[in-house]
Amino acid sequence: MKHTLAVLVENKSGVLARVAVLFSRRGYNIDSLAVGVTEDPTISRMTIVVRGDDHVLEQVTKQLNKLIDVIKVTDISSDESVERELALIKVTADANTRSEIIQIVDIFRARIIDVAAKSMTIEVTGDEEKIVGIEQLLSSFGIKEMVRTGKVALTRGIKSV
Amino acid sequence: MKHTLAVLVENKSGVLARVAVLFSRRGYNIDSLAVGVTEDPTISRMTIVVRGDDHVLEQVTKQLNKLIDVIKVTDISSDESVERELALIKVTADANTRSEIIQIVDIFRARIIDVAAKSMTIEVTGDEEKIVGIEQLLSSFGIKEMVRTGKVALTRGIKSV
Repeated sequence: MKHTLAVLVENKSGVLARVAVLFSRRGYNIDSLAVGVTEDPTISRMTIVVRGDDHVLEQVTKQLNKLIDVIKVTDISSDESVERELALIKVTADANTRSEIIQIVDIFRARIIDVAAKSMTIEVTGDEEKIVGIEQLLSSFGIKEMVRTGKVALTRGIKSV
Repeated sequence: MKHTLAVLVENKSGVLARVAVLFSRRGYNIDSLAVGVTEDPTISRMTIVVRGDDHVLEQVTKQLNKLIDVIKVTDISSDESVERELALIKVTADANTRSEIIQIVDIFRARIIDVAAKSMTIEVTGDEEKIVGIEQLLSSFGIKEMVRTGKVALTRGIKSV
């Protein structure tokens, strides 16, 4: 079972290490993790996607809540939420293939952010399915390099984490 | 001095914890960290933004390279690179303010991804300056919630990490 956890933490040295260690001790593999500051610069928000046993996750969540620098932990998997991820994909491109790649970029409402003689770099946002979809289509041209941010999520409507 | 490190690692349980602990032991605060799978699902790529002494960072990099699950560490701060971050911002909105918010969204080439009676959720990508820019403009309406992925980066042109 996949879970998306939103973890509000104090923006301090060592917090990430303590959180990551809690998961690793339980053998919990983190599929993706994104951490950045929030509207309050003293507070960071981690979005952690994990897969594993529900009971063990409940224990991990309890232990997270006990960490002094953790402000709040919310499992937003089951809630109604909007989820997005950002990927940058550098794909092999030349005069012959460029227009075909541009077509794919348009279909996925992605953006070209760098062009060189033999490559193009594309920025795309969406859910996991969309990212995997454009990746598969572009892979026939040859993907030189790719980086993904991991998922971030907010609950829909007026509900706040 | 701010550095952006691209760290290629085996996609295994515990790797993130070992990497995070290395930074925290040196008192190095991680500004942002994004980790997701690459074009090869057995390999993850971490993008870590840190601030601190160059000499200490060099030591941390050496130690990272010694970790068995770390494949490659590259400091891409000084290289020519394209950098992007994704933010989701939930802002207070009603019939009176909605059109003004839509204008701001258009100017920043952002996207509206959820609308409720009293709020709108906006997706925006860009460099740090752009994210901070739209955040400041939207803050006058009231930001209910915000999440950022942290920066990801790829070198420009044919160069690969």
